[in-house]
Amino acid sequence: MKHDEKKLISGINSGSRVSLSRLISLVESDKSAIFRISDSLKRKDNDTYVVGITGPPGAGKSTLTNRLIQNLRKNNKSVAVLAVDPSSPFTGGAVLGDRIRMQEHALDDGVFIRSIGSRGDLGGLSSATSAIIKLFDTFGIDVILIETVGVGQTELDIIKISDCVLVTLVPEAGDGVQAMKAGLMEIGDIFIVNKADRGGAEKLAREVDYMISLKHSENNWSTKVILAEAENDVGTKEIISEIEKFKNFEIQRDLLDKKRVKRKLSEVETLIFQKMKFELENIKDNKKVKNIMLDVETSKIEPEKAVNMIFKLFKESL
Amino acid sequence: MKHDEKKLISGINSGSRVSLSRLISLVESDKSAIFRISDSLKRKDNDTYVVGITGPPGAGKSTLTNRLIQNLRKNNKSVAVLAVDPSSPFTGGAVLGDRIRMQEHALDDGVFIRSIGSRGDLGGLSSATSAIIKLFDTFGIDVILIETVGVGQTELDIIKISDCVLVTLVPEAGDGVQAMKAGLMEIGDIFIVNKADRGGAEKLAREVDYMISLKHSENNWSTKVILAEAENDVGTKEIISEIEKFKNFEIQRDLLDKKRVKRKLSEVETLIFQKMKFELENIKDNKKVKNIMLDVETSKIEPEKAVNMIFKLFKESL
Repeated sequence: MKHDEKKLISGINSGSRVSLSRLISLVESDKSAIFRISDSLKRKDNDTYVVGITGPPGAGKSTLTNRLIQNLRKNNKSVAVLAVDPSSPFTGGAVLGDRIRMQEHALDDGVFIRSIGSRGDLGGLSSATSAIIKLFDTFGIDVILIETVGVGQTELDIIKISDCVLVTLVPEAGDGVQAMKAGLMEIGDIFIVNKADRGGAEKLAREVDYMISLKHSENNWSTKVILAEAENDVGTKEIISEIEKFKNFEIQRDLLDKKRVKRKLSEVETLIFQKMKFELENIKDNKKVKNIMLDVETSKIEPEKAVNMIFKLFKESL
Repeated sequence: MKHDEKKLISGINSGSRVSLSRLISLVESDKSAIFRISDSLKRKDNDTYVVGITGPPGAGKSTLTNRLIQNLRKNNKSVAVLAVDPSSPFTGGAVLGDRIRMQEHALDDGVFIRSIGSRGDLGGLSSATSAIIKLFDTFGIDVILIETVGVGQTELDIIKISDCVLVTLVPEAGDGVQAMKAGLMEIGDIFIVNKADRGGAEKLAREVDYMISLKHSENNWSTKVILAEAENDVGTKEIISEIEKFKNFEIQRDLLDKKRVKRKLSEVETLIFQKMKFELENIKDNKKVKNIMLDVETSKIEPEKAVNMIFKLFKESL
């Protein structure tokens, strides 16, 4: 571990907000960092609860997240928001809703907001996401809200890092069916029909309810559909109390711990690829590798053959 | 290469439909197969043109694809459709639209339809996708239509394997903005406003047109927005002639070849991970690895530490 990293670690372990912020930037920019610092983080696993907020684009997830922050703060919970924005791999940039929230909560020490992209990463969620969760956990945040922009794989990957998944839908033509198609039905612990003042809200809620009833339930949790208007702060309290209910339900049955252990095991696999990735980066400048790539470029060899050759070099280099 | 694989290869090289079908199943079920057979495939790179069809769920992509098949068949082009369905990683199953098409074109030897999932894969598109494209190419298909179910990363990944990307939108509240959010604006070579008989179609087309005008164009291709009603076969001919126009535009400027070379280079990287993945599978049953995982399970060590240890073993095993 580097010297300045040691300082940041001792900072976060004793509750320094600045150290937390710097460490987040570190694990985001240097994918190997978490492997160096992980052992020194004094994690408080059971205190931090991770809520994933997902659903199709336009479902009002940002507004809902903002309402959840406000209401959780009223209950004196410290809140971290992680807005995952894999939407624009080309241009980057922060999420608009995120910047608005930033301003509103800028002076509140109990709120910590960060948005991250997932450009160039494997899979939907940035590999930095779970590292950042660990940092929030170490810092002692009560509730982490993970909000996805609601595009594809990220929507589904959220189940891999969340203790509780909120699926947010809006009454629009075929939204229920599309949610089912997108695999959202399987991952939701609580369903929210947002913008419930629009026509078709009750109908959508009934549809979702019906689809839930068809679902095989592993644990007898009775999944609820909540009508909400995040814009007008309608339903937020009910959502928070439902999250609490779900948390207690899982704790009483020892399901939360089991889920977390399972998550750790699958994390090992993800991390192996992450590590593999930067090990591979290291041999990219190798002259032999460059020549192989040149042969691909001039169509002398097919990509598959190139891979066979590079792999051989990779093994030799280890 | 295995004996039966050799037979299939000689089959596909001489145009056997059965061999093509069996080889597709092979590369789907055995990720290492493409590394064995790739060198023996007599590919006809420049004859096969790959069209990616993407857009949000509910945009009518399946119907559009079906119309494109019908019209391409009228022009005597052989067509392969690859429906990528990453939507339900939990339940699997074929795409409904796919089954309907299957029936309609079942007796037509010039049409080949396959749907694939992407369960358990890295990234949005199945690692088998590019292998299957190679097989269609070898078989001598004129046009490959790749249709995504329109969920997230797959939507964007389609640019990595397509010669021409069609982005399909429908006039619904904020659809243009959502498309921009989802990164679709950047990847479209041709835009289609489907279900154009609905209100708001002209408005959406204007919005998209405006967003295109803001986009930095690398090659002076003037991206067109086409109003269509796939349901009633309105606009299909125009779409096909626009695809032709784009193809010729790129060929005349040597852009198609450049794009394909670039694609091959990035394919090398993808394939390395694919290969890495099944190499890792091989050490999973190692007793030492199992003990490390047990330590993660009992919270004795953190995932990051486990990965450091497994990686050391992996290096030793090579």
